[in-house]
Amino acid sequence: MRNFLLKLADAAAKESLPRFRKSIFVENKEADHPSDSAFDPVTEADKAAEVAIRNAIRTAYPNDAIIGEEDETENPDAENGWIIDPIDGTRAFISGVPVWGTLIGRFEGDSMTAGIMHQPFTGEAYVADGKTSVLMHNGQQTPLKTNNCTQLKNAKIMTTSPRIFNAEDLTMYDRLEAACQLPRYGGDCYAYALLASGHIDLVMEADLKPYDIAALVPIIEQAGGVVRSWDGGSANQGGRVLAAANEDLFQAAFECIHAS
Amino acid sequence: MRNFLLKLADAAAKESLPRFRKSIFVENKEADHPSDSAFDPVTEADKAAEVAIRNAIRTAYPNDAIIGEEDETENPDAENGWIIDPIDGTRAFISGVPVWGTLIGRFEGDSMTAGIMHQPFTGEAYVADGKTSVLMHNGQQTPLKTNNCTQLKNAKIMTTSPRIFNAEDLTMYDRLEAACQLPRYGGDCYAYALLASGHIDLVMEADLKPYDIAALVPIIEQAGGVVRSWDGGSANQGGRVLAAANEDLFQAAFECIHAS
Repeated sequence: MRNFLLKLADAAAKESLPRFRKSIFVENKEADHPSDSAFDPVTEADKAAEVAIRNAIRTAYPNDAIIGEEDETENPDAENGWIIDPIDGTRAFISGVPVWGTLIGRFEGDSMTAGIMHQPFTGEAYVADGKTSVLMHNGQQTPLKTNNCTQLKNAKIMTTSPRIFNAEDLTMYDRLEAACQLPRYGGDCYAYALLASGHIDLVMEADLKPYDIAALVPIIEQAGGVVRSWDGGSANQGGRVLAAANEDLFQAAFECIHAS
Repeated sequence: MRNFLLKLADAAAKESLPRFRKSIFVENKEADHPSDSAFDPVTEADKAAEVAIRNAIRTAYPNDAIIGEEDETENPDAENGWIIDPIDGTRAFISGVPVWGTLIGRFEGDSMTAGIMHQPFTGEAYVADGKTSVLMHNGQQTPLKTNNCTQLKNAKIMTTSPRIFNAEDLTMYDRLEAACQLPRYGGDCYAYALLASGHIDLVMEADLKPYDIAALVPIIEQAGGVVRSWDGGSANQGGRVLAAANEDLFQAAFECIHAS
């Protein structure tokens, strides 16, 4: 499973990496409205990477469901399947910041069982194979283990931007951030990978799509972490997501955001 | 000059990179107060990297001033000298995010003439040699050129965090962010490097120390960009800094933040 996920990520990287840090020069050809450009490198990279991933999955698992951002769901009634975000962190991608990633998750029934987050510029692959999570980097394989920090006052928290929250959600996020040791913005999927590897302790976000989080769930869980919705339910469908290094820290964060 | 700056950065990287992504495991040895830890990897990395840089400069330029974050100024009355931040972006460093950097700038009189921003995890070195700025990455040398975006509505803006601003400054920043196409947080020195390479268009920050910005000034300027204080004066002393891809965009941003 790990090798298959790495193969999928490599296929996607052949489409995404050559288009990374190219967009600006293309946009400049348009005068006033770069977003109207007929040639949009991030959208091109997104579509081409998803096609590459879908083709490789379809060959190996022809009966599985495939859910992706860019195209229709294949085999929608299948019990098992795959959920894909070819480029998570579009804003990071178009700003040249190497914290975007390719997300590919496998589900079996209601459970996310395996997944990969691949950052091709840094060459990091965070992979959960069903039992354990590892980081593959520069030919080295390192087991992933979340931090044992259990108190908010010692915790490092990340979110992509405090501006992703509506007013009510921001009040909840702000309460948690104020209780933590250190906040950090600008994470996208990279934040969850840093949580799985023990460098940060909490991630809190809202308005996620299923494909923004599904692949990260097994990576976090198989590294010892906890990822759920803000109300404690499954995070697999996205929405408001809270990830913590361990159960005690999740409970402390849960109580903090729901205190009033 | 370029080779000398790369040599300095390499000496620093030998001290910083082995300590990157190690801190969390050390902090865990302490129970409640990681900040009280006797062994603090980021501080150790900072100090050791600065010693390495100072030693190499002193050998090559024994009469030059050396100004660094971690130790006393050497030859404070010299006309020419160096200004060093061995690890700019401490919060990024301790959170595992590879957007921190080693900053080394050269001044001659009142001017910043050369400088380097080195990110050893990604292997990127952004270098200004007195005439041109280049990116050295994977053995490739690429000239740096800022974007030709001249209108705020097409501009991508970065700042490390909106929370770095006091209330009055935040009002000014928010006005500029609202006028731009896309904001992005979490940059540290990496944001200025992305501006020099044309991927983003504006950086606005406050409360910078001289060593947070001095080395970046020649990298931005020799790539065609503009970096000044919010009131249009020199940015070399830090404080409130506004960087833009070109003079027209700087003027547009300047007018925006001072509108009332």
